[in-house]
Amino acid sequence: MKRIALLILLACGGGASSIAATPVVLKVNGARIVQHLEALSAFGRNPQGGVSRVAYSDADRAGREYVLGLMTAAGLAVRMDTAGNLIGIRPGSEPGLKPILIGSHIDSVPEGGNYDGDVGSLSAIEVAQVLNEQHLTLRHPLEVIIFENEEGAMLGSSAVGSIVDQARLDSVSQSGKRVRDGVRFIGGDPDRLAESRMAPGSIEAYLELHIEQGALLEQAHLQIGVVQGIVGILDCEVTVDGFANHAGTTPMNQRHDALLAASAFVQKVNEIVTSVPGRQVGTVGWIRAQPGAYNVVPGRVALGLELRDLDAGKIQDLYARIRTAADTIGRASGTTFKFDPHAPPAPALTDAGLQTLIEDTARGLALSTKRMPSGAGHDAQEMAAVGPVGMIFVPSVGGISHSPKEYSTPGDIENGANVLLGALRRLDRP
Amino acid sequence: MKRIALLILLACGGGASSIAATPVVLKVNGARIVQHLEALSAFGRNPQGGVSRVAYSDADRAGREYVLGLMTAAGLAVRMDTAGNLIGIRPGSEPGLKPILIGSHIDSVPEGGNYDGDVGSLSAIEVAQVLNEQHLTLRHPLEVIIFENEEGAMLGSSAVGSIVDQARLDSVSQSGKRVRDGVRFIGGDPDRLAESRMAPGSIEAYLELHIEQGALLEQAHLQIGVVQGIVGILDCEVTVDGFANHAGTTPMNQRHDALLAASAFVQKVNEIVTSVPGRQVGTVGWIRAQPGAYNVVPGRVALGLELRDLDAGKIQDLYARIRTAADTIGRASGTTFKFDPHAPPAPALTDAGLQTLIEDTARGLALSTKRMPSGAGHDAQEMAAVGPVGMIFVPSVGGISHSPKEYSTPGDIENGANVLLGALRRLDRP
Repeated sequence: MKRIALLILLACGGGASSIAATPVVLKVNGARIVQHLEALSAFGRNPQGGVSRVAYSDADRAGREYVLGLMTAAGLAVRMDTAGNLIGIRPGSEPGLKPILIGSHIDSVPEGGNYDGDVGSLSAIEVAQVLNEQHLTLRHPLEVIIFENEEGAMLGSSAVGSIVDQARLDSVSQSGKRVRDGVRFIGGDPDRLAESRMAPGSIEAYLELHIEQGALLEQAHLQIGVVQGIVGILDCEVTVDGFANHAGTTPMNQRHDALLAASAFVQKVNEIVTSVPGRQVGTVGWIRAQPGAYNVVPGRVALGLELRDLDAGKIQDLYARIRTAADTIGRASGTTFKFDPHAPPAPALTDAGLQTLIEDTARGLALSTKRMPSGAGHDAQEMAAVGPVGMIFVPSVGGISHSPKEYSTPGDIENGANVLLGALRRLDRP
Repeated sequence: MKRIALLILLACGGGASSIAATPVVLKVNGARIVQHLEALSAFGRNPQGGVSRVAYSDADRAGREYVLGLMTAAGLAVRMDTAGNLIGIRPGSEPGLKPILIGSHIDSVPEGGNYDGDVGSLSAIEVAQVLNEQHLTLRHPLEVIIFENEEGAMLGSSAVGSIVDQARLDSVSQSGKRVRDGVRFIGGDPDRLAESRMAPGSIEAYLELHIEQGALLEQAHLQIGVVQGIVGILDCEVTVDGFANHAGTTPMNQRHDALLAASAFVQKVNEIVTSVPGRQVGTVGWIRAQPGAYNVVPGRVALGLELRDLDAGKIQDLYARIRTAADTIGRASGTTFKFDPHAPPAPALTDAGLQTLIEDTARGLALSTKRMPSGAGHDAQEMAAVGPVGMIFVPSVGGISHSPKEYSTPGDIENGANVLLGALRRLDRP
């Protein structure tokens, strides 16, 4: 805090309690963010490291209480919407301007880490606190938003950006509670979820800082990722039907082995996805063989195919090639493939102007940058339905995420928070 | 019965109550076997067809009671050994001769059929009943043995042929009961299991009729399989270790995908096993990927490899080639393969003299034959430790087994039972 105050004095020549009409080298307190990360990590901490703070758990509720306290201490007027999202408001100076939203989430996957979501959430609060401490009022209203249940398919931000159907509310979350009961558990009202929705065009922008969750920045020795968009995801359950038979008495040339066909399919998915240039990824992440015994030729295999890319068309092209390859495998092996895709892939592109603004801000802070897609989903993808979104990535050590080993350095976190603060201030300029 | 009596009268010229010193065309009553199969199928019958009469279930115990009644009605003096095997004794005429054993089992796999085990068991009882009805006394004592818990790795016959270790008694059977408690449930005494063991060399022979459980006989339009031996089985748990990571943020060229490596392995197993001539089989019957989600690159895969052949050396050769191939896949994919084989493969060859005897008997009945290995395990393999064994196969329609669709025709069953009876009588000759 001392260092920040000093910088302000240098930049502003003494008076710090006025609207910042000209850029000042305003910086966050990186040590304070790390201290808050450490304090937040107590809620749901696992003995073996990391945290299990799944949405709607006791740890989640306690963590939200802690964060609510930080928001209040940062001078924000905090309200909770009907979805359970925490929204801390700092009024702007010019009437009629749309709010700028910054934020992320604090829920974790089971046995997750302390950086996914937390870095962006606590940095957003830090930004508000710095503004508060410096008595700087932006032209636009500022809203710090901590979304609930991001890891459960972005429930909180989905409620803000679109309509959450009843089936999702009735599904069971990682906490063991139905989503409906979970929303109520954290203080929301699932019966009035529609009231959380923000009208399209009602915000100036949504900015989110997040850890990369990949290793591209670290490997390239770069500091800031300028996110071009959040990839679209095609999840598809694939069923391979052969014929179960006795593994001892069925000759090799008389089998219709569903697992043998499925393993050819897994190979083919990899071959097809890597056959074209680009950053697309394709994964078979789960597999089940039935009946599943040493002594039975598998009669049925189910597996999960996932394709991701920023370009929905490219996903569909790859998917079509994979289906054709599956038909070929099926004909050759006497098996049949059935594809049951989930929702069509919906990539969410970030705003081109915000990409440039984030890039310029980083460069102004002498930070190296890289434009890149986000392979993971984020609340920002839901907020893209409400207004322009921008995303800032900081490096993940080893690219590890959703793991107790997830880590980003204090220096990288501070850089990211400074870019968030700087981008916010640039965006606020007339 | 009428027909049989008639045949005897024709062959023996009237007197039917003496020791048969010369061959007579003695035949079983095929319709009676089918009728008994139908009656036995009531115990554990499933609404969708077939039977679940797993060892130590209520259905198993009730089925055993039914079979015990048939044995008694066939004039056998029935005792139960400490393992729970039912042994029906028909004394021989010459003192000092070792007994000839015939039999099989009546327990089933979950959702199994009505022919595996049942055909051999009820045919053995039919053989005893025919001898009884015709007042024919063999030179050797005859013992009809109905082994308990064949489907649970030949427990009953293992107790007769060797030593069952305590770990097997403590394991949980398909019935949900520990094996130890199951043996007690059917009337055995698990603490005195060793008393069931028969000394090596203590029997003249063990003959078992069984359904083929494969389609070789049916496809070749042949009636009787002369079993050369029961294949040795190598079961091996294979673990593939890669590195679990986010499926959205981990580029394709930076993955250590355990499932991708495992699928290459499954392909390779098939390729190696089919690369040499012979009747060997190799199967990957089960597979598990961890953590097992659409959005995570699998970090670990476990799978079950099984190799079978009559020649243990051939199994070991194939296994060695498969391990070498796995190392190659591991090096190429940044994964490691670990092999955890169960017991070494122990093929059990049938007696060459009994093969010829069965073949001659079948030909004498104008039945076509084929020498073949048994790809499935049978009680006979355990009995090979006690004395010479012979096995007779009858065709399985479609090669289907361990399924409600398992079926053998009444004509084929009758043929098999007649070969069993004829082989027994030839074997009994001085």
